[in-house]
Amino acid sequence: MVFKELLNFRLKDISYKRVLSSMCTVPHPLAVKAHIMFLETNLGDPGIFVGTWELERELIKMLGKLLHNEKAAGYICSGGTEANIQGIRAARNLKRAKKPNIVIPKSAHFSFEKIGDLLAVEIRRVGLDEEYRVDVGEVEKAIDENTVAIVGIAGTTELGQVDPIDELSKIAIEKDVPLHVDAAFGGLVLPFLERKIPFDFELEGVTSITLDPHKMGMATIPAGGILFRDESFLKLLEVETPYLTTKYQFTLTGTRPGTGVASSYAVLKGLGFEGMKRIVKKCMENTNYLVEKMGEIGYEPVIEPIMNVVAFKTERAEKIKEELYKRGWVISTIREPKAIRMVVMPHVTKEMIDEFVEELKKI
Amino acid sequence: MVFKELLNFRLKDISYKRVLSSMCTVPHPLAVKAHIMFLETNLGDPGIFVGTWELERELIKMLGKLLHNEKAAGYICSGGTEANIQGIRAARNLKRAKKPNIVIPKSAHFSFEKIGDLLAVEIRRVGLDEEYRVDVGEVEKAIDENTVAIVGIAGTTELGQVDPIDELSKIAIEKDVPLHVDAAFGGLVLPFLERKIPFDFELEGVTSITLDPHKMGMATIPAGGILFRDESFLKLLEVETPYLTTKYQFTLTGTRPGTGVASSYAVLKGLGFEGMKRIVKKCMENTNYLVEKMGEIGYEPVIEPIMNVVAFKTERAEKIKEELYKRGWVISTIREPKAIRMVVMPHVTKEMIDEFVEELKKI
Repeated sequence: MVFKELLNFRLKDISYKRVLSSMCTVPHPLAVKAHIMFLETNLGDPGIFVGTWELERELIKMLGKLLHNEKAAGYICSGGTEANIQGIRAARNLKRAKKPNIVIPKSAHFSFEKIGDLLAVEIRRVGLDEEYRVDVGEVEKAIDENTVAIVGIAGTTELGQVDPIDELSKIAIEKDVPLHVDAAFGGLVLPFLERKIPFDFELEGVTSITLDPHKMGMATIPAGGILFRDESFLKLLEVETPYLTTKYQFTLTGTRPGTGVASSYAVLKGLGFEGMKRIVKKCMENTNYLVEKMGEIGYEPVIEPIMNVVAFKTERAEKIKEELYKRGWVISTIREPKAIRMVVMPHVTKEMIDEFVEELKKI
Repeated sequence: MVFKELLNFRLKDISYKRVLSSMCTVPHPLAVKAHIMFLETNLGDPGIFVGTWELERELIKMLGKLLHNEKAAGYICSGGTEANIQGIRAARNLKRAKKPNIVIPKSAHFSFEKIGDLLAVEIRRVGLDEEYRVDVGEVEKAIDENTVAIVGIAGTTELGQVDPIDELSKIAIEKDVPLHVDAAFGGLVLPFLERKIPFDFELEGVTSITLDPHKMGMATIPAGGILFRDESFLKLLEVETPYLTTKYQFTLTGTRPGTGVASSYAVLKGLGFEGMKRIVKKCMENTNYLVEKMGEIGYEPVIEPIMNVVAFKTERAEKIKEELYKRGWVISTIREPKAIRMVVMPHVTKEMIDEFVEELKKI
């Protein structure tokens, strides 16, 4: 009885076959199988879930290697917001400023407003250059004695753009301010691209990185990730845990599923570096195919896509989004410049793009 | 290949058949089935997951009714810590004090220290009475013009004790301070007990309640819950969400699984009020059975159990815990008074208690 009811709710959801707006995707079959195997697990209690905890350490090591730092320390969390909270929180606790502020690009995800409110940290958004990358000069000007972190984005939500993290890294070292890189999306795209764009721990100023396996890692939700340069940063987040099998806890949440760890590991290890590269390559091919098809009907991309996120200029962006939604298709929009925006996730095929462009023509 | 590896990690976890320390349990079969049905869902994007979002509204209504308030507003989150963060954050944002503080019992969960650090709120822990319930006189004394919230616990982690929420409610009204009730554990025990202990929205001063379906609701992890007296509190948590299908977001995390909503709903609706009552009754019977068996070998409970959490006085608590752990059994300890502590969750049977007591005798 209750399942018939649940199914009716579930059927009202829009299928991913019509979704071009989300940075999440259909979980990989390897991820689903691993998820079910770890359904009962709770990483909030590592003394009970000894094996799952070990698996998490293995996964963090794997991700650390991918990000050029075998000493990276961190954990798998609820998603990019928690990861960014913890990155900024560690920086704030390290610097202990009177009236803490952080300097972030205008293009940073809206969740940084949440983080500002939550952590009682002033958010200083600075402008972008012509290519929608943070203006490094403005970052430098915005920093003062109360700045506890600089944020760079590797894969902006709106355009998939990557800030000049190498230059931000130099400033971070010079000014002795932690540099947090939000690579929630790009962290599992950039390492697999032909074109090499530095964004990770190989840049010495980078102190923490957000990287979400439940986005391009095709893991099951929730599987966000926060990695720090070394273990010392975890100490800045620790509280004592009197009732548990361990003495301290550095995570934001207490009870914490092991499913995201298992599903991330299954995909990354199961597919391997080459397998991930193939998937990212396919996404880029499809992104270019979308640009081509959209070009045929007169749409121009805001920037040449760097990863599988692309926006097309149009004054009618909001109207188009609404019309498409009525017809069962989901895209999103950006405000500056006015544009419609799509994310070409692994569930997006050439056939889906064809159908989408046909629908768009009718509007 | 990767699954053999994953299985090896999973097999290192301790089975719930030997766990008496956790407030989590084996998810109910109804929960598992519902979880799998909603595996792909993401409540971070309600315009895509329209049906799952509706289901969540239904679940919140159901929980609201259970807590004597059909107008309750809230959402299903990662767990008790996030729920408590959001309860305190809303209160802090409502009161806007210069140097905010909150007044909480000594018995409050350790995660409140995390919350203090996170939200930059001073934590004032006040003493308990002889029954380990918060001393109401001390609460009153600790409140000043910077107090943004009072916290009461309905089901303390250590003893399952319930603070005099009715008295706290009176103080909250008198002093015009929000009262947050942490019923992460007790919220799905107290409504099903024979003995009626007031703790919820029927007490007028209560503004928010934490209640975790992944504890006594036997839902899959993650399924915490935060409920506010009415929708106005959600406004205090909102940020704008430019790229999503909705305009505002009041949740702490962005991407958010629908699995916890589905699994909570499946259990609560599937079993119904009477079914939940039967399960709670069984847990209480087993708790009393444990007290009886422990009594036979000379252990005395710290307080008569109110719910299915019980602690037994012993100076050797730490030693006993360690010895049992070596033998594959997990219990926990409390510090004041020194005691060993068990939670008699639905996975705990009389047979398991017999085996446990036999093992304990050997030490």
